[in-house]
Amino acid sequence: METPFEPNLEHYKNFYKKQLLEDTVPFWFPRSIDEEFGGYLLMRDADGRLLDDDKAVWIQGRAAWLLSTLYNTVEPRPEWLAGAKKGIDFLRKYCFDTDGRMFFHMTREGAPIRKRRYFFSETFAVIAFAAYAKASGDEEIAAEARRLFGKCLEYATTPGLLIPKYTDTRPAKGIGVPMIMINTAQQLRDTIGDDRCDEWISKWITQIEQDFVKDDIRCVMEQVSPEGNIIDHFDGRTLNPGHSIEGAWFILHEAKHRNNDPHLINLGCRMLDYMWERGWDTEYGGILYFQDVYNKPVQEYWHDMKFWWPQNETIIATLLAYLMTGNPIYAEWHRQVHDYAYEHFHDRENGEWFGYLHRDGRLSSSIKGNLFKGPFHLPRQEWYCWQTLEAFLQKEPVS
Amino acid sequence: METPFEPNLEHYKNFYKKQLLEDTVPFWFPRSIDEEFGGYLLMRDADGRLLDDDKAVWIQGRAAWLLSTLYNTVEPRPEWLAGAKKGIDFLRKYCFDTDGRMFFHMTREGAPIRKRRYFFSETFAVIAFAAYAKASGDEEIAAEARRLFGKCLEYATTPGLLIPKYTDTRPAKGIGVPMIMINTAQQLRDTIGDDRCDEWISKWITQIEQDFVKDDIRCVMEQVSPEGNIIDHFDGRTLNPGHSIEGAWFILHEAKHRNNDPHLINLGCRMLDYMWERGWDTEYGGILYFQDVYNKPVQEYWHDMKFWWPQNETIIATLLAYLMTGNPIYAEWHRQVHDYAYEHFHDRENGEWFGYLHRDGRLSSSIKGNLFKGPFHLPRQEWYCWQTLEAFLQKEPVS
Repeated sequence: METPFEPNLEHYKNFYKKQLLEDTVPFWFPRSIDEEFGGYLLMRDADGRLLDDDKAVWIQGRAAWLLSTLYNTVEPRPEWLAGAKKGIDFLRKYCFDTDGRMFFHMTREGAPIRKRRYFFSETFAVIAFAAYAKASGDEEIAAEARRLFGKCLEYATTPGLLIPKYTDTRPAKGIGVPMIMINTAQQLRDTIGDDRCDEWISKWITQIEQDFVKDDIRCVMEQVSPEGNIIDHFDGRTLNPGHSIEGAWFILHEAKHRNNDPHLINLGCRMLDYMWERGWDTEYGGILYFQDVYNKPVQEYWHDMKFWWPQNETIIATLLAYLMTGNPIYAEWHRQVHDYAYEHFHDRENGEWFGYLHRDGRLSSSIKGNLFKGPFHLPRQEWYCWQTLEAFLQKEPVS
Repeated sequence: METPFEPNLEHYKNFYKKQLLEDTVPFWFPRSIDEEFGGYLLMRDADGRLLDDDKAVWIQGRAAWLLSTLYNTVEPRPEWLAGAKKGIDFLRKYCFDTDGRMFFHMTREGAPIRKRRYFFSETFAVIAFAAYAKASGDEEIAAEARRLFGKCLEYATTPGLLIPKYTDTRPAKGIGVPMIMINTAQQLRDTIGDDRCDEWISKWITQIEQDFVKDDIRCVMEQVSPEGNIIDHFDGRTLNPGHSIEGAWFILHEAKHRNNDPHLINLGCRMLDYMWERGWDTEYGGILYFQDVYNKPVQEYWHDMKFWWPQNETIIATLLAYLMTGNPIYAEWHRQVHDYAYEHFHDRENGEWFGYLHRDGRLSSSIKGNLFKGPFHLPRQEWYCWQTLEAFLQKEPVS
C-alpha cells in the first residue's frame, strides 16, 4: 500500500530511460557528428537546424563523455563508441594551446577563437578521456586523462598560475572549482580509477563544508573570501542555487560511494535544503537563476530567469536525497521540480529541452545548443536518475 | 494651428528641464558625493539606499562629466563645480594603473578590483576632464584631457596594443569604438577645443558608414570583419539597436555642428530608420536589447529585456531627427518612445528611472545604480533634449 508521499519509482525509472533514449539522445545524434572535421555540430535551434557551426570546447568534451558513458553503462552500441571517438580526436588534435592549456571556443575546422582564464575545458576533457578510455580500452587515452587531471590539480592549487580576472585587492574563491573537481575525480575513479581521487575529493568536500556552507543563515555561498567569509558586495552576495544543488548531489553521490556515510548524507541534504528554500520559485515553480544572500537586488540582469540546467541538477539531488534518506519531503520536492521542468522545458514537438525561459515559464529563446548548452545536463540527469533508480529497485523491489 | 503630427515642443522642453533638475539630479546629488574618500557612491536601490560602496570607473567619469556640464550649460552652481571636482580628483588619484591604462572597478577607498581590456574608462575620463577644465578654467586638467584623448587614439588605432579577448582566427571590429570616439571628440571640441577632433570624427563616421551600415538589408551591424563583412556566427549576427541609435544621434549632432550637412543628416536618419524597424517592440513598446540580423535566436539570455539606456538614446535620436528634418514620422516615434519610457521606467515615488524591465514592461530589478548604470544616460537625455529644444525654439518660436 502506498502512502500519499510515496513516489512511483518504477514509473520514474522507465520515464527517464525512455526520455533519454527515445527523445534526448536522438535529438543530438547521429546528426551532430561532424564527419568532415571531427567533433560535434551542436549549436542548434529548436527543430535541430544548425545556427552556428562553431564548437564550444566544454560541450565537445561533455558530448564525448555522454556517448562514452552510454556505451559503458547502457549498452555497447558501436555507433556510440565511434561517435565518442570523433569528439576525443577533435579535442586532442585542435583544442590544446602550445602552453598545454585548452581553448574555449573553436571554429568548425578546429582553429581557436577564444581561450578563457578558467580550466573547465580541461575538467570536461578529463571526464571525456576517462570514459572513452574505459569504453575503448585505449591505455594512451587513459594516461592522457590522468595527466590532464594532474594539470587541473595544479591549476586548482597554484595561486597565480592562471591569469587572474581580478586584482588581489579583494581576494575571493568560488564554489565552482571544488565542486567540479569533486565530480571530475569521481568520474575518473568510476571509469579508469586513480589513486589520487579519494583524498582530493575529501579535501574539496571539507573546503565546501567549512568555507561555503553557512548553517547560521541556512545558505550555500557561491563565492567567499579565502578564509570563508561573506564578501558584502554584489558579486559576493550573489547566490546560484542550481549550482549549489549540483554540488549537493555530488556530495550525496560520494556518500553513497562511501557506504552511505552519514556525515556526507547530512551535508548534502543540508545544502539541498538551504538552496531549495532560497532557489525554488514559490510563485511560478522552478529554480531561479540568482538570488542575493540578503535578499537585495542582484546585479546580473537574468537573475529571475529559469535556465534548464538548475532544474536538471535539482531533479537529481531531490531524487537522490529521497532514496538515501527516505524523507518524504524530498519525494515531494522531486515531484514538483520534475513536473515543472518536463511541463515547461520539454519540447514535445522536436524532443530535448529548451534552455531559457522567463520567470513565468514563457519561452525566452528557442535555442537548443550554444556555447553553454548541449547534450549534457539533461541527458546526464536522465541517465543518472534512471541508473540510480534501477540499482535502487533491484535492491529494494517495489512492494 | 497644429497638425495632428506636430508635437508640443514647448511642453517637451519644460518637461525635460523639470525632470532633470527636480527629479533625476536630486536622486543622485548631493547624497552620492563621498566626502570621505572622494568620488561618488552610486550603487543604489530604488529608494536611494546604498547597495554597494564600490566605484565603477566608467560611472565616476560620467558623473563628473554630468556635474561639470550642468555647471557649464545650465547655471554655475558652486555645488556642481565642487561635486565635479570630487570625481575628477578620485579618477586622477586612484584610477590609473602604472602602465597608464585605467582600471574598471574600484573599492570605495580607491583600491583597484578589476581592469578590463577596453579603454572606455579612459574615454569617459576624457569627457569628464574636458568638461571640468572648462568649468574650472584649470589648464592642467585641460592638458590631461588632451593627453588622455591622445592615448585613446593610440589604443583605437594600434592593433595589439591592448590584450585581445579573442585570437586572430576570426578578426572582428565593433561599432563601439568609432561611436564612442566620435562623442568623446565632440565633447572635447565643444568644451576646451582640440585641433585633432574634426578630422578624426570624419574618419570614424566614414568607417561606420562604409563598414557597419548595410543599406541593402536596412541594418546597422554591431560587429563586422575588418573589411566590413557580416560574420555569420552568433556574435557577428547580434544587433544592438539602442547602441546603433546612439551612434545615429552622434552623427546627427555632427551634422548640426556642420551647418546641417545633408549627407550626415541622411546617414543619421538612415541608421535610425533601420534600427527602429529592427529594435522597436511593436507588441509591448520600447526598444529591445538584442536582435539577430537574420531573425535567428540570439545567444545572450537578456536579448528581449528592456534596458533603460536604449530608450534614452532613442528619445534623443528621434527628437533630433524630427527637429532637423521636420519629418512627422520622427515626431511620432519620439512620442511613442517617450511615452513608453516615462510610463514604464520612471520611478514616480523616488525619482530617476529603473534600469531593467522584462519585455512586457514588468520590473525585473529595483536597482538604480550598479557597475553599468548611474547618473548618465537619463540625465544626459533630459539635458540634451532640453537644451536642443531651447535653442530650436529660440530660433523658431512656436506660432
